[in-house]
Amino acid sequence: MKALRLREYGSAPVLEDVPDAEVTGPLDVVVKVGGAGVCRTDLHIVEGQLAELMKPPLPFTIGHENAGWVHAVGEGVSTVRVGDTVILHPQPSCGVCPACRGGRDMACTRSFFPGVSGHDGGMAEYLRTTERACVVLQPETDPADVAALADAGITAYHAVRKALPLLRPGTTVVAQGAGGLGHIGIQVLKALTAARVIALDQNEEALALASAVGADETVLADGSQLDAVRELAGESGAEVVFDFVAEGNAQHDAWAMTAPHGSLFVVGYGGELRIPTMELVAAEKSVIGNMVGTYPDLAELMVLAQSGRVSLHSRKYPLAQAPQVLDELSANRIRGRAILVP
Amino acid sequence: MKALRLREYGSAPVLEDVPDAEVTGPLDVVVKVGGAGVCRTDLHIVEGQLAELMKPPLPFTIGHENAGWVHAVGEGVSTVRVGDTVILHPQPSCGVCPACRGGRDMACTRSFFPGVSGHDGGMAEYLRTTERACVVLQPETDPADVAALADAGITAYHAVRKALPLLRPGTTVVAQGAGGLGHIGIQVLKALTAARVIALDQNEEALALASAVGADETVLADGSQLDAVRELAGESGAEVVFDFVAEGNAQHDAWAMTAPHGSLFVVGYGGELRIPTMELVAAEKSVIGNMVGTYPDLAELMVLAQSGRVSLHSRKYPLAQAPQVLDELSANRIRGRAILVP
Amino acid sequence: MKALRLREYGSAPVLEDVPDAEVTGPLDVVVKVGGAGVCRTDLHIVEGQLAELMKPPLPFTIGHENAGWVHAVGEGVSTVRVGDTVILHPQPSCGVCPACRGGRDMACTRSFFPGVSGHDGGMAEYLRTTERACVVLQPETDPADVAALADAGITAYHAVRKALPLLRPGTTVVAQGAGGLGHIGIQVLKALTAARVIALDQNEEALALASAVGADETVLADGSQLDAVRELAGESGAEVVFDFVAEGNAQHDAWAMTAPHGSLFVVGYGGELRIPTMELVAAEKSVIGNMVGTYPDLAELMVLAQSGRVSLHSRKYPLAQAPQVLDELSANRIRGRAILVP
Amino acid sequence: MKALRLREYGSAPVLEDVPDAEVTGPLDVVVKVGGAGVCRTDLHIVEGQLAELMKPPLPFTIGHENAGWVHAVGEGVSTVRVGDTVILHPQPSCGVCPACRGGRDMACTRSFFPGVSGHDGGMAEYLRTTERACVVLQPETDPADVAALADAGITAYHAVRKALPLLRPGTTVVAQGAGGLGHIGIQVLKALTAARVIALDQNEEALALASAVGADETVLADGSQLDAVRELAGESGAEVVFDFVAEGNAQHDAWAMTAPHGSLFVVGYGGELRIPTMELVAAEKSVIGNMVGTYPDLAELMVLAQSGRVSLHSRKYPLAQAPQVLDELSANRIRGRAILVP
Repeated sequence: MKALRLREYGSAPVLEDVPDAEVTGPLDVVVKVGGAGVCRTDLHIVEGQLAELMKPPLPFTIGHENAGWVHAVGEGVSTVRVGDTVILHPQPSCGVCPACRGGRDMACTRSFFPGVSGHDGGMAEYLRTTERACVVLQPETDPADVAALADAGITAYHAVRKALPLLRPGTTVVAQGAGGLGHIGIQVLKALTAARVIALDQNEEALALASAVGADETVLADGSQLDAVRELAGESGAEVVFDFVAEGNAQHDAWAMTAPHGSLFVVGYGGELRIPTMELVAAEKSVIGNMVGTYPDLAELMVLAQSGRVSLHSRKYPLAQAPQVLDELSANRIRGRAILVP
Repeated sequence: MKALRLREYGSAPVLEDVPDAEVTGPLDVVVKVGGAGVCRTDLHIVEGQLAELMKPPLPFTIGHENAGWVHAVGEGVSTVRVGDTVILHPQPSCGVCPACRGGRDMACTRSFFPGVSGHDGGMAEYLRTTERACVVLQPETDPADVAALADAGITAYHAVRKALPLLRPGTTVVAQGAGGLGHIGIQVLKALTAARVIALDQNEEALALASAVGADETVLADGSQLDAVRELAGESGAEVVFDFVAEGNAQHDAWAMTAPHGSLFVVGYGGELRIPTMELVAAEKSVIGNMVGTYPDLAELMVLAQSGRVSLHSRKYPLAQAPQVLDELSANRIRGRAILVP
Repeated sequence: MKALRLREYGSAPVLEDVPDAEVTGPLDVVVKVGGAGVCRTDLHIVEGQLAELMKPPLPFTIGHENAGWVHAVGEGVSTVRVGDTVILHPQPSCGVCPACRGGRDMACTRSFFPGVSGHDGGMAEYLRTTERACVVLQPETDPADVAALADAGITAYHAVRKALPLLRPGTTVVAQGAGGLGHIGIQVLKALTAARVIALDQNEEALALASAVGADETVLADGSQLDAVRELAGESGAEVVFDFVAEGNAQHDAWAMTAPHGSLFVVGYGGELRIPTMELVAAEKSVIGNMVGTYPDLAELMVLAQSGRVSLHSRKYPLAQAPQVLDELSANRIRGRAILVP
Repeated sequence: MKALRLREYGSAPVLEDVPDAEVTGPLDVVVKVGGAGVCRTDLHIVEGQLAELMKPPLPFTIGHENAGWVHAVGEGVSTVRVGDTVILHPQPSCGVCPACRGGRDMACTRSFFPGVSGHDGGMAEYLRTTERACVVLQPETDPADVAALADAGITAYHAVRKALPLLRPGTTVVAQGAGGLGHIGIQVLKALTAARVIALDQNEEALALASAVGADETVLADGSQLDAVRELAGESGAEVVFDFVAEGNAQHDAWAMTAPHGSLFVVGYGGELRIPTMELVAAEKSVIGNMVGTYPDLAELMVLAQSGRVSLHSRKYPLAQAPQVLDELSANRIRGRAILVP
């Protein structure tokens, strides 16, 4: 089958022929890929930024936002059948460690991450994953329409889901960054809460999209955003802030916008957060890290997606164009989300 | 009446005669002070370190850890009577703002802080507070025995109380700092959980006390504490870390000891916490600030104290010796907690 | 002032002249009534059905769903001012008992219930309540438009609010009874969750209203409703059932519709619920009672109401017509909610 | 191997030779039984009381409280190894249904119940279960010492675990029934809370045991128990009541002892609970059903057991004496818990 292989850090991955993905264990599932999202993390992987953290052996096939149809299953698989339309949780978990048993499968210490951890990913015709990763969709769903929810979507959903107990009617929320993650986050906030949502971005187009998907207020991040947010949210800031950026100095803006007794949910990454412990204590504020999400998070997000409450803007490209699409993304010339279709 | 007055930052407070505390509003309560704890925060106040944050007008009477007997009540007071033995929540709240109504009275924006915010505190014969601050005790309780629980105690209890849902049997907890706050925290942990508690301190005597009040393991903070904790808690660290120190570089040790998917509860203050957002996100860790506690926290702590499950080591001094006691505390020559008795 | 007085159980209350309501304590608030809802509970009160439970001394003024404008305040009142537009929590609480301090003011054991407990209610020109009961509204709000939310509204909101952690996307909910309480409950469910809502009623008009306010499915309670719900929700029933009826045999239908591991929220009353403990245990089901709601519940509901997400169908009548309106309600000839305007 | 087989309802089960238990699927685990608890439910099974509910095909081997050593594992098993000492969750779950993924494995709809559901149980030399059921113990643990915690223990733990958020210091709890379940429940309450525990039983010996394991008060259920509990807990009753009996009329006592805004946790079964919905609503009380517990519940309970905080009184008998032991239990002549050792 064709697969986009990373052979060397810093060099563009190459489309080449590899043996078909196969069932290797009793709980394995092989999926015929229907859509594989292209993500900035793919660029980071190619550049080698995750090499130290994940230590993946080269070469491997990239692609970690995948959906398709079940092609083959191991003998122990009981909840999906050949032909099912599925979206794939990006990190197949073991199901039997304490974290998995407690419903926190993202904390599974025996999981793998196809397309990231050196296991072959979804920019290919077929992908090996496990039953634990498969969320069954309505049969008529086009996998390419939802694939990007498998990573960007679940991440935004997970962070909002954790914040729900804080988001009673009358609460004001800031979503810093209204790009891929942020505009999903805003839709989830509008679907599951009556909180007032202030969207913040450096880009006017992103803010227009934020308004279109339900943000109550928008603020252009042009240097005066702290004052602008305080004018809208009150002098003390917002009870809940989602930082989908968290690089440059954005994380400090996010902290400063978080009201006393409020919570900052960090979703983006890249920068360093520096906080006087006196501020943490005197205002009893919290900083909550967020990493992808659980299988139930993805299943719930798909309920929202299949009922039209959450959608994402994407454009399909043939798998053969993968190298060019990565180039375009790198040059910041992709609008919406690019989805590769084998 | 006699009262210990702060007249000028940087100068020792002076014991002088002032008019007796009086009921000034319908919900006021005047308490005859039976014990007033002496706290390092009193030193910080005298030095002016809280001047900018609290902007208190000088002069005023210090003392924010108080217990005694009700001496007079306003016409609207219905839950305490003259003669009741009481311990006082340090921050009388309004009772009608959204935070108070929601059970989060520490977030009251209309509260005051006797002995800290420029309102007269408890190093005096009488103290004006309000009904909202009074926790009624068993009549025979000696106020001087419990006064220090009004601030150090409630603060440690509050942090542990917030962490309880994380502290299922089998969890490992680190308490960094086994001094005034820490040794209360350890007792509360042992009373309300079956978690394994590792106590960490620079001082061998503090560790001996930690063991005596129930710590399962002790670690001397001699520079090798990170390795020592990892040996006890496992390579990834402890699920929950309480940092009762949070100055110097201790806050970074605390962060490093916090396991992936774990939570760091910051209670002490003074230092700056610097965290790469990548660490927050990749390991889905949280940092939780903690500030004093709620009235129900204090009431619950007094249940533990009056049933003997939490106790503190204190020594009583006459109010007249207050200046010397502050000097001794400043010179680090006080063991246990000093309590002034008018 | 004019007031509708209950003089004798079983006899129609009478509009008569009584002394104006007055401030009697430091936290009292006198409200000029702008709207007083007429409720079936008023009929029960007149008939004496609550006499044993509440033991109210006669005569007194009825009316427990009230909104208006602040007319006078006691000396200790700090959060409302003369002229403010307010809706009134039906049960002014003490603010200092353990329940109030813990954010559970409906459990206050020192509260009173104007219009029900023998204290004068709101079918009058003025009403005495306390600061604890006042939710300030946007100044331009017509009190008569929202008055009925003070009791029927808060009750439905409270029950849904308690159920929120159970109502993740993909959950199916049954609302049994789509009348006054039920149609508010359905609107709150649609505003705060993505759950699928099945409305159930004996009345076709009520079901049409249920659809109009957002119910996903409707079922006519014509004797075959259990089968109809199982066809929609699955053989095992719905994860969450709200029973706004709970009399006749409805409570047993509600129990039977509740899926294993599900929860039945009982809001209506009148019947007896009989459950084999084997069913409770083998299916690990719960039955949750619900009584009015807290002050924060009412404040949050008003956020939904003032932003148009929850509305109720009401019709205004002059206070002078109160006796006729009660007759009409008794004869079941009132559509929507009747509001008396002094 | 030898196994105790139920051949016909109403007839004593018979010890006979059957083929050895075998691994039949990739996630299967065969355990060499080290101890199998004998439970009143075994009598109910023999009498056919669960026949309609569970529809088990006859004959089968009974015994649902099992611990032992891993004897063989399927090819997909990764967390237990041959030789491990294990206690077995009584209901092996699938691991991939929504309930299992959400951490609620007791709600798994694809589980089985060895010894109860017609699948062979543990009163035999070997038992087939799955990896999902195995909690690994310290190697030196004697399985016969802990076997009964696999069902009676986990059930009591689960109910207390669910109640923990209600059990703040100062709360009063009633444990109705201080037998097998109740005396575990009391130990768990003492290990994990500072609540005051009132134990209630018809049997003086049971009450003596309750005191020995930590009950703060005991009440003999001699007909005057409601008054006695009210004298101890206050006129309105206890905030939390665990009913480990729930047959005869005990369930109504339990309801009457539950304070307004309190919760009744039903663990025993047999009787019918009849509640006026007016009582549920006016006092906002809840009834919570409880069924066995989750795998994490069992794992946590074993932490308490292995550290000595929870223990049970048991006596060992050779498997060959199983018929006599069942007779003795039926005649109420067994004290403590009987454990069969093959």
